Amino acid sequence: MHVLIIGAAGMVGRKLTARLVADGGLGERPVDTMTLVDVVKPEHPAGFGGKVVTSDVDVSSPGEAEKLIATRPDVIFHLAAIVSGEAELDFDKGYRINLDGTRHLFDAIRIAHGQDGYKPRVVFTSSIAVVGAPLPYPIPDDFHLTPLTSYGTQKAICELLLSDYSRRGFLDGIAIRLPTVCIRPGKPNKAASGFFSNILREPLIGEEAVLPVPEDVRHWHASPRSAVGFLVHGATLDLEKVGARRALSMPGVSATVGEQIEALRRVAGDKAVRLIRREPNEMIMNMVAGWAPGFEATRATGLGFTAEKNFDEIIRVHIEDELGGKL
Amino acid sequence: MHVLIIGAAGMVGRKLTARLVADGGLGERPVDTMTLVDVVKPEHPAGFGGKVVTSDVDVSSPGEAEKLIATRPDVIFHLAAIVSGEAELDFDKGYRINLDGTRHLFDAIRIAHGQDGYKPRVVFTSSIAVVGAPLPYPIPDDFHLTPLTSYGTQKAICELLLSDYSRRGFLDGIAIRLPTVCIRPGKPNKAASGFFSNILREPLIGEEAVLPVPEDVRHWHASPRSAVGFLVHGATLDLEKVGARRALSMPGVSATVGEQIEALRRVAGDKAVRLIRREPNEMIMNMVAGWAPGFEATRATGLGFTAEKNFDEIIRVHIEDELGGKL
Repeated sequence: MHVLIIGAAGMVGRKLTARLVADGGLGERPVDTMTLVDVVKPEHPAGFGGKVVTSDVDVSSPGEAEKLIATRPDVIFHLAAIVSGEAELDFDKGYRINLDGTRHLFDAIRIAHGQDGYKPRVVFTSSIAVVGAPLPYPIPDDFHLTPLTSYGTQKAICELLLSDYSRRGFLDGIAIRLPTVCIRPGKPNKAASGFFSNILREPLIGEEAVLPVPEDVRHWHASPRSAVGFLVHGATLDLEKVGARRALSMPGVSATVGEQIEALRRVAGDKAVRLIRREPNEMIMNMVAGWAPGFEATRATGLGFTAEKNFDEIIRVHIEDELGGKL
Repeated sequence: MHVLIIGAAGMVGRKLTARLVADGGLGERPVDTMTLVDVVKPEHPAGFGGKVVTSDVDVSSPGEAEKLIATRPDVIFHLAAIVSGEAELDFDKGYRINLDGTRHLFDAIRIAHGQDGYKPRVVFTSSIAVVGAPLPYPIPDDFHLTPLTSYGTQKAICELLLSDYSRRGFLDGIAIRLPTVCIRPGKPNKAASGFFSNILREPLIGEEAVLPVPEDVRHWHASPRSAVGFLVHGATLDLEKVGARRALSMPGVSATVGEQIEALRRVAGDKAVRLIRREPNEMIMNMVAGWAPGFEATRATGLGFTAEKNFDEIIRVHIEDELGGKL
């Protein structure tokens, strides 16, 4: 089968590519062709015996989605987006890439469907940013869409388009509402949510990290490994069971920052915890106050999506996948 | 003040125009200019002393929204849409008019806002079609968006855009989720929902009407007078009280078809009821099975939106407004 990954150069895209190479296929079917695209050219994956095409393409540019669809990939992972902060700062760019880019892709598929009945599986990465405060805890699956950012609005709109295009038979879509991915590998970044990862990742390698919010802040997390697992399961799941409502809130770990820190203490000791420096930041506190504390995720769990059960597990996944299994 | 009504030639648009003429203003402020547009040229309203501009304009055509916004109306009622059946039959037309047309309008306002701080009140007519079965009864205000038609999807997307554009300060928007308007005046039409009105309106004037569904079908209704009342209240309400979630499910009357018929019997007697002919229609039954049985509408009620309390009242409103007050 032919798999297309749009947004393949990002952290989740690279891990997804590696997982497909390691598995050699998706579900029961071997993958013989991978097309990997992003605004920067994705790396050629090591150890893959099939055909690989990599290219630097902005799918929101006119005609680009049509070119990708002309090759009739069987499964499309659409991970490309600009992040929340950038979509908030640059209104036009956010709507152009996160909304119009996705709609162009869906429409290219629709037109191909009209030509020859083409109907790919489309796995779209949505976000918990489709909801915003005030929020219940846990948030039920039937809670309404209440984004408080343009990014969240764009994701919510794409979810609605995906369900409508699926209902009409143009494509077979599923939208995966990813929890905040934690522990993000790499260096600390400027994302407002970065500290959730920083306060664990940096102390685990003996570095200091800054905590800008109080310890009672509760948020919703899953490991990068789980995020990739959601996408793979979404690509292989029988969507008849999902019905008309194609957006699913994924399972995850709901934890306060204090609980994260206690998990770090259990795994890496007091020495690691002492590397967390409190530096309250009003702006980050205000942003985080609008974020989701956790979801019931009853539907996704019933459909076989799984995540970690607690933060100790999330930390252990990081040690296994990023630190070679040892501290 | 200057009021723009887009979709002014439709049933609700004409009644809204008449209401503004009768009231002479919106809330405390007199209306001195009305711009009335639709794809067919709206009639010039009788008895209005101010300036009136009427024109046949498709606001989804490039440049048309900008021209309307160049006149800087203080309040914009956006009622223009193609109906559910047509949006389902013609995918491109539905998305072009119901989604892109609305987005062009909002973007024309956004650009004007960037030029001189222009920030009109925008009252957008949404629909109970933003939800679809399986549904609880009554449907709570925080129930998620689950449209089962492209029309409902387009309305849900416009609601999300309206909230985001309002949050960012480009406009001051409110989306009014109208119940099924009953009793629709005029002749029977081919709309799948037409029978809800037909089985009352026709017997009230001694004509036969066809009932295509069983009497236990429950649905959600408000009179044309209430629909106009919602729009006027939405145009004058203090939106600070509404907060970030700008789409409101309106109050209405939840009734089974059997309850509608009993109300007809109380108001117009057995003779009227005998004019209803049962002619079960599988296709209409299947469509109606996905529709909303009724909403809690707690937020809208708390914000002062009001509708009829029962079907006797809905029938009496029709007799007063359409039949000169007598049977």
